[in-house]
This record gives sequence, structure tokens and C-alpha cells, in this order.
Amino acid sequence: MATALASQLNTLDLASPLPLDSGKVLPNVRLAYETYGEMAADRGNVILIFHALTGDQFVAATHPITGKPGWWERMVGPGLPIDTSRYHVICANIIGGCMGSTGPADLAEDGAPYAMRFPVITIRDMVRAQVAMLDQLGIDRLHAVVGGSMGGMLALSFAANWPGRADRVLAIATTARHSAQNIAFHEVGRQAIMADPDWRGGDYYGGGGKGPEKGLSVARMAAHITYLSEAGLTEKFGRRLQDRDAKSFGFDADFQVESYLRHQGIAFTNRFDANSYLYITRAMDYFDLAEEAGGRLADAFAGASATRFCVISFDTDWLYPTAESRNIVHALNAVAAPVSFVELSAPFGHDSFLLDVPALDRVVKGFVG
Amino acid sequence: MATALASQLNTLDLASPLPLDSGKVLPNVRLAYETYGEMAADRGNVILIFHALTGDQFVAATHPITGKPGWWERMVGPGLPIDTSRYHVICANIIGGCMGSTGPADLAEDGAPYAMRFPVITIRDMVRAQVAMLDQLGIDRLHAVVGGSMGGMLALSFAANWPGRADRVLAIATTARHSAQNIAFHEVGRQAIMADPDWRGGDYYGGGGKGPEKGLSVARMAAHITYLSEAGLTEKFGRRLQDRDAKSFGFDADFQVESYLRHQGIAFTNRFDANSYLYITRAMDYFDLAEEAGGRLADAFAGASATRFCVISFDTDWLYPTAESRNIVHALNAVAAPVSFVELSAPFGHDSFLLDVPALDRVVKGFVG
Repeated sequence: MATALASQLNTLDLASPLPLDSGKVLPNVRLAYETYGEMAADRGNVILIFHALTGDQFVAATHPITGKPGWWERMVGPGLPIDTSRYHVICANIIGGCMGSTGPADLAEDGAPYAMRFPVITIRDMVRAQVAMLDQLGIDRLHAVVGGSMGGMLALSFAANWPGRADRVLAIATTARHSAQNIAFHEVGRQAIMADPDWRGGDYYGGGGKGPEKGLSVARMAAHITYLSEAGLTEKFGRRLQDRDAKSFGFDADFQVESYLRHQGIAFTNRFDANSYLYITRAMDYFDLAEEAGGRLADAFAGASATRFCVISFDTDWLYPTAESRNIVHALNAVAAPVSFVELSAPFGHDSFLLDVPALDRVVKGFVG
Repeated sequence: MATALASQLNTLDLASPLPLDSGKVLPNVRLAYETYGEMAADRGNVILIFHALTGDQFVAATHPITGKPGWWERMVGPGLPIDTSRYHVICANIIGGCMGSTGPADLAEDGAPYAMRFPVITIRDMVRAQVAMLDQLGIDRLHAVVGGSMGGMLALSFAANWPGRADRVLAIATTARHSAQNIAFHEVGRQAIMADPDWRGGDYYGGGGKGPEKGLSVARMAAHITYLSEAGLTEKFGRRLQDRDAKSFGFDADFQVESYLRHQGIAFTNRFDANSYLYITRAMDYFDLAEEAGGRLADAFAGASATRFCVISFDTDWLYPTAESRNIVHALNAVAAPVSFVELSAPFGHDSFLLDVPALDRVVKGFVG
């Protein structure tokens, strides 16, 4: 079992305001990031990991709020597939997030929280902020960028827009564009948050308000279904009852799957800001790498033909199914970029990239090691 | 194009209190039902149609609230697959519903609305009420029972529990038990309703309160995603924008799929009672025909070996996928019941049973005609 690593908790204030895809500019951008392992003198051993929608920079360190292990402790550490005895690993909280990087809960220049005055950002904006961070850290070229789910979108955006900056790009369980169904699920979550009167148009910070916890909880529940496979849910819960021998003929959580979802929803509200959830899901829904390049995905990767790619999908992932990864691979093939592609078999659905899938460990180790 | 039929709007008060699977008894049960076509003198030409979760008795008549055509006008009418020039078609609003049959919005014996005092009911309870209705109408034996989605569950429950009462059973896009994923989606919807402060523990009737419209709307949005296929959503909406040329970089419904879902959610609140949604989804989640029979699905159909069955699934239905229909068919095979089974190809996902699928029309006509 991996154990939490000692890590460096850092913040970095960008030297310049951050230009955004919307045309707006975000001033006073701070990034909170964790690092693991020593940076080589030539700075040539840096791996940048991008986290997923509800992830954060605590990749392999105990989470400061939940006290739980880092979200990728099984993958990142000494001797692990992303080997911190050889590589200097950096993971920054995305802008728009709520774990120390500038987001809607932070104070705008007028001294009041941004709330819904925070500008709508894109996946590329999130990457742009981290490229600026790399610039200030004096890191010109990365050994690899790595990301799963939304993190994979950032990795692809990094490769497409800053093609000279990474030797390797590893994109796991991800997509080059959000589908109508992806958008639909996110929209349900946003509407659940906005329907909660405690959301108050986003102005729930301070004043003792608790924020739209119920709405955020429902949003998390809906999203959680998409992270698991139907077969995985059946295997994990089936129709088993929760702490009872018979149905209650009431509205308690009779079934284990109900109890599980309620728990996931409530636990999430303790560590996540609802407005961040709105902004990040919006950024994901806006993501369409082909559109950015004029409509053809291959054109997005036109400058990246010298980058080595690895694309991994899971056969039970119905959120970003293998067909989405194939689209990416076809586009990379069209620009003759060197790309490895594998669909792994794992029972856990989309969440497979976070879970015990030994084949994933081997592929990651082989590609970044 | 089918047109709304003249229909008989009827209500019927059950002569006796209705015993429920919970052990409770529901007094003063009223059923609201529509009929189409003439009943033969020997009452041998009756087809009972069971409606789906959010359906109602207005199968082929204009809906009194929405003014829209009946939900199966393409299927039920003179010369149509369920031919009302030959058959007398009955469809009753289920108990627990909100279109005239006894449900949570109705008054309990103390003169106040049941609200959440309404007993939790099962699919079999819904059928039991309609069997009592048939008894009072003097209809001993049906030519056929027909249902899609939840209506299919009622049809299967009818066949299993009252095996001598129908010659033919047609179950479309349905399942013999709700899966963990099915339960999970319903639980999200229930939590969305219950999180709405306007739900007020279910006591929102009268007093000028509007009820949990926002929560019910979110519930409907989440459910709607499950009624459509991913490919169907992509074809229908893709990433197309709604009434604009570019993304707004805001939280309006930029995408058509967002606008569609919001509309579906809001429109639903005008015609459906939130407490009914809670009770009916609960009944569906409780549905497990095998469990009722001691754990083996075939045993549920032990008495139904003389009934003719037809089971239809759709290849793009991920709510009740074809595998669920196969389970039903295998169980029927095990008791040597005559059963036809077909998986139809249609792009519309679960909603295919309501939409323009000519192959469905042919199968229905062939089986009940």
C-alpha cells in the first residue's frame, strides 16, 4: 500500500495578469501546487500532472481537509510507475478551483469574493496559467505531462497549444471534446446547484451561510453515476439492502447504492466549492479541441508531430468511451505523431484511471519511465 | 399523422379497500381511465395498456393539461397496430399517479392530503388496483395487456400474478428488476426533489405554495438523459449552440442540449406532482419479479405457461438494455411459455417505444392484431 509522501506545498503568484479565451484578463492569479521528488540540476526530469474535475494538487500527499490519501498514491511515489526517486512531479490546483489557486471564492480587486463575477474560463485557460507557472519556475521543457479525465483534456490542450514544451503526453480516460451527453449531465448538476436557494446567485461566501450544499450534493450524485460502469454498480451494490433485512416501504436509503450516493454527495460538500463546480464543468463543456483549430482535430496537433503521445481508454468507461480516444489517436496519426494507444479492460468504468488496474500501472511506467 | 380520438373519460371507485404489498390497506381507491373503441358483447376484445412512469391514461386522446396529442397516438386508433375499430382499449392512471387515480395529492380519510402519508406502493399494487377495476367492469379475460418501460413492468407483474387473466402479454423496453444504476438515477431525482425547500416534507398542497418545481425539474432532466441514447443526443444536438453564433462565456443555455433539458424539466412541472414522482420511482426501484417469486425469475412465471408473450427491446436503450429482456425471455423459456423476442434497431434509446419505429408497429400489430 502506498503511503502519503512528504511534499512541498507551494503557492506561486503569476507575475502578469492572465489573458483568457473569453477576451477578459484575470489579475492576481495565484497557483497552489504540490511537488514530489527532487528536480534535476538541468530541470530535465519534471513531470506535470493535471488533476480531474474534483481532484486537486494532493496527488500523493494526505488531503488537508479530508485526511484521506492522495488521489494517485498508487501511481506516484518512489519506485512507483511515476517514480519520484527519478522525477520531479508537479501538480497544481487549476484556476477556478478551490484548493488554493485563484477561483470564484477568492477576493476580486474590490475586496469582495468574485462569486459569479469570476470570468468563465476554458481548459486552455487552465493550462495557460500553468504554463506561466512553469515559465516563472524556469522550467522550459517537461519530461511529460500526464492527466486523466479532465486532466487528460488539459494534457491534450497543453500538447496542442504549447507543443514544444513536453516530450511526452499521456492522456487517460479522456476526450477531445465534450459530447451532448457529457454536457447534459453537467447541466443537470449546475441546475441542481442553482436551484438551491442557499446558492443565492453565487453570493454565499461569508455571512455564516452554508452555501448550496444540497444542490452540490445532488450534482455530485448525478456525476458519480457516470463515473461507474453499470456492471460495476451491479457488482458493487446490486439490489442489496443497506443495514436491513427487508425493504422499509419508505424513503430511507433502503438500497446500498442509495446510501453510497448520498454519502458521496454529502462528503463532497465538505471539500468543494459549488461555484468552482459550476465554472469547472462549464470549462469542460466548452472543451472542443477541434473547434479551437478550425474544426479538424488533426489540425490542433499540427505542431505536435514530434511529441510522443500515449492514449489510454477503459472498456467500461461510458463517460468518455474508447471511441473518443480513437478520435484523438486518428488525429495524431494524421499528423504522424508517434502515438501509443491501448484500451484496457477494467470493471470500474471511468473511475478505472484512479483504481487498482495493474495494466494501467505498467503502461504508465513504460511510457513515462 | 394520427389524430386525437374521441374517448370516454371515466372514473371508477373500487368497491373494497386495496390491500398493499407493504401490509397496509388503501381505502377509497379511485381509478381514472380512458377507453377507446367498442367493447364486444362477449367482452372478449379488451386490451389493457399500462402507461410509463410519467405517462397517463391519455394514450390516444388530447392531454387535458398540455393540450398535446396522446402519448401513443401513433400506435392506438382505427387501423393502427392496436386497432380500436376491433379492440376495446382501456388505459388507467396508476395509483400513486396524479391524473385522477388515487395518489399522494388526494385527501386521506382525515380530509387532508395524503402527501407523504400515502403508503409506499409497488408495481404489483398498481396492477392489483387495475385487476380490481377489471373485476368491477366484469372483464374476466383480456385479449392482451401491453406496456412499455414501467408499463412493461406492470404487464409482466400482471402475467406473473394473475396468469389466467390475459391471453397475450406484450412487454416493451422493460426489465424484470431495477438495476443498481436504475435505482441510482431515481435516487438522484428523489434527492433533488427532497432538497428543494418548497417540497416542505411533501406538504406543499394548498396554501398557495408552488411545490418543489425546481427539484422536480432537475429530477426530470436527469431522467431524460437516460431516455435518450448517446448517439441520439449527438445526432439531435451535438455541440450545436442555441440561438447564438458563439459561446456566451456565461451560464446561459449556450448549447441546444442544455436548452432542451431545461425546457423538458420546466414543462414537466406543469403536469406532474412531485410526490407522485417520489412514490412511482420508489415502486419501480422496488420492482424485482424474481425476488417476489423467491429468487428465481422463472418461478414468477410458473403459472403463465399458457400465456403468449412478446418481449421487445431496442438496441440503443441503455436504461433497460436488451440483456434485461433476455433475462425475461430465458425465464419464460424455462417454463415453456410461448414467447417471441425481438431486439429492434432504433436510434432513439429508451424512448424508442414512443417514437417512429415502423418495425415496432409491425411487431405490435402482428402480436396483438
